[in-house]
Amino acid sequence: MTSRETPFSAPVGAAQYGGTRAVSRCNSLGVAPYSEEEGALFRPYLSKAYRETVRCVSAWMEEAGMTTRQDAAGNLVGRYEGARPDAPALLIGSHLDSVRNAGRYDGPLGVMLGIEVVAYLSAHKKRLPFAVEVIGFGDEEGSRFPVSMLTSRAVAGLLTAAPDTMKDAAGISLRDALGTEGFLLEDFSKAARNKKDVIAYFEAHIEQGPVLESENHAVGAVTAIAAQYRFLINIKGFAGHAGTMPMHLRQDALAAAAEAMVAIESIALQGAGDLVATVGRLDVAPGVPNVVPGDVAFTLDIRSGTESIRDKAAETIRTALAAIAEKRHVELSMELQQDLPATPCNSALTQALSDAIQKITGLSARKLVSGAGHDAMVMAALAPVCMLFIRCEKGISHNPAEAVTAEDVEIAFQVMVTFIESYAETYSAGQEKIA
Amino acid sequence: MTSRETPFSAPVGAAQYGGTRAVSRCNSLGVAPYSEEEGALFRPYLSKAYRETVRCVSAWMEEAGMTTRQDAAGNLVGRYEGARPDAPALLIGSHLDSVRNAGRYDGPLGVMLGIEVVAYLSAHKKRLPFAVEVIGFGDEEGSRFPVSMLTSRAVAGLLTAAPDTMKDAAGISLRDALGTEGFLLEDFSKAARNKKDVIAYFEAHIEQGPVLESENHAVGAVTAIAAQYRFLINIKGFAGHAGTMPMHLRQDALAAAAEAMVAIESIALQGAGDLVATVGRLDVAPGVPNVVPGDVAFTLDIRSGTESIRDKAAETIRTALAAIAEKRHVELSMELQQDLPATPCNSALTQALSDAIQKITGLSARKLVSGAGHDAMVMAALAPVCMLFIRCEKGISHNPAEAVTAEDVEIAFQVMVTFIESYAETYSAGQEKIA
Repeated sequence: MTSRETPFSAPVGAAQYGGTRAVSRCNSLGVAPYSEEEGALFRPYLSKAYRETVRCVSAWMEEAGMTTRQDAAGNLVGRYEGARPDAPALLIGSHLDSVRNAGRYDGPLGVMLGIEVVAYLSAHKKRLPFAVEVIGFGDEEGSRFPVSMLTSRAVAGLLTAAPDTMKDAAGISLRDALGTEGFLLEDFSKAARNKKDVIAYFEAHIEQGPVLESENHAVGAVTAIAAQYRFLINIKGFAGHAGTMPMHLRQDALAAAAEAMVAIESIALQGAGDLVATVGRLDVAPGVPNVVPGDVAFTLDIRSGTESIRDKAAETIRTALAAIAEKRHVELSMELQQDLPATPCNSALTQALSDAIQKITGLSARKLVSGAGHDAMVMAALAPVCMLFIRCEKGISHNPAEAVTAEDVEIAFQVMVTFIESYAETYSAGQEKIA
Repeated sequence: MTSRETPFSAPVGAAQYGGTRAVSRCNSLGVAPYSEEEGALFRPYLSKAYRETVRCVSAWMEEAGMTTRQDAAGNLVGRYEGARPDAPALLIGSHLDSVRNAGRYDGPLGVMLGIEVVAYLSAHKKRLPFAVEVIGFGDEEGSRFPVSMLTSRAVAGLLTAAPDTMKDAAGISLRDALGTEGFLLEDFSKAARNKKDVIAYFEAHIEQGPVLESENHAVGAVTAIAAQYRFLINIKGFAGHAGTMPMHLRQDALAAAAEAMVAIESIALQGAGDLVATVGRLDVAPGVPNVVPGDVAFTLDIRSGTESIRDKAAETIRTALAAIAEKRHVELSMELQQDLPATPCNSALTQALSDAIQKITGLSARKLVSGAGHDAMVMAALAPVCMLFIRCEKGISHNPAEAVTAEDVEIAFQVMVTFIESYAETYSAGQEKIA
């Protein structure tokens, strides 16, 4: 169907908002001057490409009927007033920065869809019982400075001060990078929003995984952002000559690691559907063909939308690995390096979003956990959060091959409009208890 | 027991030959000027340390009653004439060069034991029906030039010419290194011995493995030097986000490699006793904690004293790995990189050696395969070969911690004397058909 034939169509004479335009705008932001590199997309926070992007997206926001500003942390904020001035706002956000050699949709698509929703409201002269703000965050990816999501943390009021000593790979401090763009490090935390001014945070994002594609859903409702553990596992065996050390006398650290990895995979496969466990890095010493390995170190990443599932998996793995080490007479240690709690999405908002998905697609909404982190996990400290995932080709992300279809994005757009209008009705009915 | 109490004792007034002296001489060769490095043993072929070692060992040979020379390849050769001049010789050899940061016994101990045997014969004024020659080979380890066992290949007549373009790590050619020591590259292959002048080759060597120690044998008879395969295995899966790629949709190259390694170990454990299979090197790409690995490459070294056992194991592994790859929807290739045939030791000589072991130790000889390569595998092209292994502590080798006991080396010495005297009787009885 085309937008002409739907309740979401632009009025005669108005600009053609919707999914197609959102995709097209992401594409146009994929090249210079919106990228620091020729022939590849790289848009770090506070770069010239970031400045150009803010300028361009501001214009689109204003065209859609918003007033725009950059907050003290450099985030771009567009505001579409509600039926009464100074009403609290529903925030629709995602990020404008990108990793190196990025895809075009990871981040910007959520911002563009926010603009399309406002363009729809604006074209139909609809004012809601709350304001709608669209936020383009500056540093979700952490692709310039060594930490990520500083700017959403500022908005969520989680920062008392920005890190003063932090530098990028070129040795430029956050202070100087902010200064170049006209911001003061001391003001960074002033980007914080007051809880009473924000009723909810909504983020649309590509899935960055293969679930929706494999199950033929254009979109899905995110129930939580996964809890994550990261461990470093060290195995100490005994190095020996590959020719002279008989099999039954070996204390082969790599053979022990192999059995450990098989056990880890098996435990993750037997766990709840959203449980994942990954060995991504593995180092072998001495690492030569004719020596039985004496030492192996590998990382273990475990995630689930439910902390207790993640924790139970970690304990099951710990027990299994200890048994393998004992049986093989090798030493094994499992050191926790990172522990991120789960961020549940607001259940009432997620149910409303699921209803909107069912209404638009005719299918029961696919609910799924986000294994990747998003600004929403930070914004959950400020307001109830809700996330919409959009199918992406083969689950590929952080890669120029990242792809979405305009049809899917149009569905996402219609779902968002449906969700917001329904939410406005609920809100009007005085049912603000949703959070 | 001391040497005084045995039939192997030195006559009154003669130097105290035997195992203790062999060990002590290896120790004295472990330091400067017999090492290129202070505080560690490194004796590369044609180095100053090698020259000093040849000078010192020549003196010991002469003291034992041998005439000495360096052959055209720089090997040190001592000769103890038999009952009649120009008799064919039994060669007793091993190597004088060492790896960097070497132990003191890998190589020199076999040469020292040859000298002790001649010292015994000489002290007792025994002349055998054949000459005994002791050879110290120059480059078994390949620790200077990029190939190994060039000098034993020259003696075995396997070289028509030495490599002209080969250089060491400092850029010095073999030609120049030979020239510095007074040798001509063109003459290198003249080190070749005539088959009619050599009746057998005997090598004593530390085991470089843990079998004798774990089974309480001082020495063992080597039945063969193992056949070796080396493969490079590549697995191509599909990289994905560690958080967003569900377990059941993964094509994890490292998880596939883990299952492959477990299968390889299991196949090797189920094979014949001397079968070994080793994954010594493994590389993961992209190799970061939060990405499901897309590519893994690892080496596979398979050895057995019996080629058919090695070959069958390789085929069983190939079939198992193909099944794992198919099940996991990953691509797997297994590329043969090296194929060294097995070198069987002469069975009559090995039986005679086993009889000597039983006579001296009172235990049935432990027969074992050498998983490591030795000059004997080259010398097998020239004459029937026979090898005696000596227990070493924890199987450690190529390491300063390499250790033997004087008691074990004394047993090796007595076994060698017993073997040679028994062989002389057999030989005298006109049973030269042993080869």
